[in-house]
Amino acid sequence: MMKFEVTILGSSSATPVFNRNPSAQLLNCNEKYYLIDCGEGTQQQLTKYNLKAARIDHIFISHLHGDHYFGLIGLLSSLHLNGRIKPMQIFAPTPLLEILEIQFKYSDTNLRYPIEFFPIEADESKQIFENQDLIVKTVVLNHRIPTTGFVFQQKPRQRKLIKEKTEDIPMAYYAALKKGKDIEQSNGEILRSEDFTTPAEPPRSYAYCSDTMYDERYFETIKESDTLYHEATFMHELLDRANETHHTTAKQAGEIAKINGVKKLLIGHFSSRYKTLQMLLEETQSVFENTELAVEGRTFQL
Amino acid sequence: MMKFEVTILGSSSATPVFNRNPSAQLLNCNEKYYLIDCGEGTQQQLTKYNLKAARIDHIFISHLHGDHYFGLIGLLSSLHLNGRIKPMQIFAPTPLLEILEIQFKYSDTNLRYPIEFFPIEADESKQIFENQDLIVKTVVLNHRIPTTGFVFQQKPRQRKLIKEKTEDIPMAYYAALKKGKDIEQSNGEILRSEDFTTPAEPPRSYAYCSDTMYDERYFETIKESDTLYHEATFMHELLDRANETHHTTAKQAGEIAKINGVKKLLIGHFSSRYKTLQMLLEETQSVFENTELAVEGRTFQL
Repeated sequence: MMKFEVTILGSSSATPVFNRNPSAQLLNCNEKYYLIDCGEGTQQQLTKYNLKAARIDHIFISHLHGDHYFGLIGLLSSLHLNGRIKPMQIFAPTPLLEILEIQFKYSDTNLRYPIEFFPIEADESKQIFENQDLIVKTVVLNHRIPTTGFVFQQKPRQRKLIKEKTEDIPMAYYAALKKGKDIEQSNGEILRSEDFTTPAEPPRSYAYCSDTMYDERYFETIKESDTLYHEATFMHELLDRANETHHTTAKQAGEIAKINGVKKLLIGHFSSRYKTLQMLLEETQSVFENTELAVEGRTFQL
Repeated sequence: MMKFEVTILGSSSATPVFNRNPSAQLLNCNEKYYLIDCGEGTQQQLTKYNLKAARIDHIFISHLHGDHYFGLIGLLSSLHLNGRIKPMQIFAPTPLLEILEIQFKYSDTNLRYPIEFFPIEADESKQIFENQDLIVKTVVLNHRIPTTGFVFQQKPRQRKLIKEKTEDIPMAYYAALKKGKDIEQSNGEILRSEDFTTPAEPPRSYAYCSDTMYDERYFETIKESDTLYHEATFMHELLDRANETHHTTAKQAGEIAKINGVKKLLIGHFSSRYKTLQMLLEETQSVFENTELAVEGRTFQL
């Protein structure tokens, strides 16, 4: 089965506390690494969990509040110093490039590797990336500054040949059979795809909603995700504070998961006022049971 | 005795490795906190060692290589979010202000507290700060980009009154006696300062040389420091590499301490190629015995 898992590097909102670090997650899809947000200390967290930063080729930054990107310049600098030459693709709000370039300029750093920068517009959901494994779409969130979430969607895969049954048929037919096509041979005999192959794994999807208040307008884009990560900064008793700061409560995160029919919910981005997290988890679970805490060092199969 | 000590928050050069963090030190002089350099993760290190970031009122940045300042924007942001209102004085190369401001701009942050920014020119040693306890002077170092070290010099203190002896003389005389002045009373009797006071503690000094190659031109400004922190990035067998990158070897750091008659040497800024540090220490000690490793969490009385 193709690997599709996420490791949490930071679960804190705004300021790092109680050994909780600011937002960052590492997605592993088919042994390729995708970094999602990059708060201060992300490179140290990667080292701590034995995840090689050099394997990251794509970075997605949700917005320009510091707890989501202050670690990026350090990570990029270390990769440079450690000899990286392959390109790094960065998907982020436009001004981030200016912020990076000014810092490279004054440190007199000429990166040995190219940064391929893809500015994100936060106005409507769109596809921003595609490779052989994955499609990435943005989610238009509702925060104090332009903010996008991301949906990481596996691409539909081909059916798998059943070895014992396909040994005696021409290899030229394999590609069509894997695509689900039946084949009519010259003698009129029909080879049915379903007789020679097993169904593909259904493609899975992971939706990441970093910083946002409850807003039905983005529900459509995260609907029926297999796993949803959603911020849950406050307990619901602080709903006013959540609205004021454009954040979500633990109860609301559960409601969003339920309404949108996701299979599993991860919550994070916890306010520094909560020394322990059990009550946030319980509040969410009272609405949506299959919830887990997205805390440092945990890896979730998606 | 007035407190004068430094706690090491980072001992790594360039990239964080093996639980070594990039450069940062916290100087405590008379219970006031002065931060010297601020590599990525400094705010987490302060938390780890139970040092309250809110107590820092002065920050000194030696140069604009990222391992010496990437943690500053996060630290300043957290102080803002935690309600700071008192000013923060920052002494740093001119472009740092631009780097900070662009990041505050795009995160739509209006700091609740003022930053008082003092640009440092790296062309000649000069006094850049003075308060009731301390004078700070710059050290013109020789690195790839403009870089200054700092000498933190306690101000001369007054002599101390001997309680038992001064109980019977007018309090109006105290100030003069503490300054070392003798007093002629109206009856012609002379009160000698040395009979009523004990000498002041001699003022101590701490010199911080962050990133530099061996260069006699800065020796004058660090001469006879009580404690010298000096970078020692490489073993002496890598002298060519040290010269090429404008760094110092462990042996050279010892020589600098010896030549300049300092009492104690701390070495740091260790290359990521060294998994353990004992051999660096031994190389320095072979030249200058009173050397210690400036590693994370250690506090040195200055």
